[in-house]
Amino acid sequence: MSKESTYVVGFDLGGTNMVGAVLDRKLKIRGSKKRKTRAEEGTEKIYERIRKTILGAMEEAGVGLKTVHAVGMASPGPLSQKERIIYDTPNLGFRDFPIGKRLESDLGLPVLLENDVNAGVYGEFVLGAGRGFTNVVGIFPGTGIGGGLILDGRLFRGSTGNAGEIGHMIIQASGPLCGCGQYGCVEALASRTALAKEAVAMASSGAAQPVYEQAGTDFKNFRSGVLADAYRQGVKGIVKIVERSAWFLGIAMANCVNLLSPEAIVLGGGLVEKFGEAYVRGAERSMREHALPMIVKDVKVKQAELGDDANLIGAASLAWHWIG
Amino acid sequence: MSKESTYVVGFDLGGTNMVGAVLDRKLKIRGSKKRKTRAEEGTEKIYERIRKTILGAMEEAGVGLKTVHAVGMASPGPLSQKERIIYDTPNLGFRDFPIGKRLESDLGLPVLLENDVNAGVYGEFVLGAGRGFTNVVGIFPGTGIGGGLILDGRLFRGSTGNAGEIGHMIIQASGPLCGCGQYGCVEALASRTALAKEAVAMASSGAAQPVYEQAGTDFKNFRSGVLADAYRQGVKGIVKIVERSAWFLGIAMANCVNLLSPEAIVLGGGLVEKFGEAYVRGAERSMREHALPMIVKDVKVKQAELGDDANLIGAASLAWHWIG
Repeated sequence: MSKESTYVVGFDLGGTNMVGAVLDRKLKIRGSKKRKTRAEEGTEKIYERIRKTILGAMEEAGVGLKTVHAVGMASPGPLSQKERIIYDTPNLGFRDFPIGKRLESDLGLPVLLENDVNAGVYGEFVLGAGRGFTNVVGIFPGTGIGGGLILDGRLFRGSTGNAGEIGHMIIQASGPLCGCGQYGCVEALASRTALAKEAVAMASSGAAQPVYEQAGTDFKNFRSGVLADAYRQGVKGIVKIVERSAWFLGIAMANCVNLLSPEAIVLGGGLVEKFGEAYVRGAERSMREHALPMIVKDVKVKQAELGDDANLIGAASLAWHWIG
Repeated sequence: MSKESTYVVGFDLGGTNMVGAVLDRKLKIRGSKKRKTRAEEGTEKIYERIRKTILGAMEEAGVGLKTVHAVGMASPGPLSQKERIIYDTPNLGFRDFPIGKRLESDLGLPVLLENDVNAGVYGEFVLGAGRGFTNVVGIFPGTGIGGGLILDGRLFRGSTGNAGEIGHMIIQASGPLCGCGQYGCVEALASRTALAKEAVAMASSGAAQPVYEQAGTDFKNFRSGVLADAYRQGVKGIVKIVERSAWFLGIAMANCVNLLSPEAIVLGGGLVEKFGEAYVRGAERSMREHALPMIVKDVKVKQAELGDDANLIGAASLAWHWIG
């Protein structure tokens, strides 16, 4: 890389949208470009849009290829960070797609690939709610529950590159069935999906009338917005299951605390955005109730700060340090 | 330290015995000394015996103070690794005892203090079942369940120095009460104490006649040896609860695998020694059943190899690298 390189590209590949941005050395966004992903149009067309979105972001920022150090790309997994291959993404239709090499040869820039949750946690670590700490656990409850680990100041990937699967931590042996096939994962107890299962049954039994009026009894209608409306209105059953979700999340947080003794836990994702501070504090109370006092005493629980930018900021930051 | 330093002292402070040993650069034991701890005689007398045991080990090895690099001491916790203070040990009666500084001024040698489970896991990592791996989780089920983590080739202590508390991982929310005050910790489901609770109830109800004949119905008699005898004799109820213990242990192992993606899990401690390979394989089967296939695929499960020497070897090895 030439000494002139003073920018880095961050990219966030999502199931609905993709965003590319050019960031400077301080990780300030200098220009960005957003496009629909349109997964239904197939891999090659998505790839083409990724390439164009990166070039478009550079145009927006008024930055040429020569001054860009590298591209950091956040993508849903499973993927190989080392080989820079997206193995298989249910929402995108990629299958063993060598996105790193393809982009590298098309753009002439080094391309780092990282799974989106790891990238987001790293983003929060360098510039958001996790900054200033050395050991941070990031947990993102939404449709599923994602997680990432910063240990001794670095993103911890483990031997396979897939460390941080907090969602499939079993906290209630023989509990409710999880999408992964196990019973009692925290994801089966605290995710939006887990809440929707309870809420649809309540709506159907007449126990949550306002929810029934808004969403009927079709599971597909039980999105975060519907649940959040009912929660704000104080619909009793819904408040109960949301509080219960925070309680279960706190048990998983306590397990992480006992195992890793972090300084901070950063909570983000759909449920945290929709249910806000009350949800975060509920999870924190449960964590303090369930962890060893000596280890949990000074642990901070913080709400993620970077929102949708976390993934691309994290990927961009990883790309800065990845090469010389 | 002078260039002549070619030995290191490892020390294992236990509730019943203490052992000091002189090790060479290859961590080969050149001489050792063992004494009863005799906690009932009070802190100062224990301390005096520790000092004499270290000097005795050096005499055994024919090694003088000048050629010793440092002392690495493994002790039960809670303790401060950084401050080298033993805070409080139920079995030893220490209370905020500055063992590091005391020994340092009495011996004129640097003294490293590490909790015994961490030291034992590190010992297995450098010289035992964990050697050759980069990420290792050590789990030691006995009266309680201890754990330690080797991450990216180093002992991971976390922000408080107390990381690795695997025993208090909650795997069955609202499960049986644990000694720590929580419900459903793996220690409350899989430790010797958990087994003894089941076994004493069985003996008392007539469901485990051979155990009743050997141990009656006094909980204090339900030691590992009694349980192991009944297990070997194939006493049905006992076989069942031992298999169940391995199954619960495997769930905690799966949680560690999903979170940390290690290459190996090393199992040691009283239960593993007493119930042997069948127990280890039972735990391994449960781990594979409960972890994400992609992450658990290549994980090795190994039985600890160093036995009682693990703690002092680990402490000695940590002391080698601690200074210069």
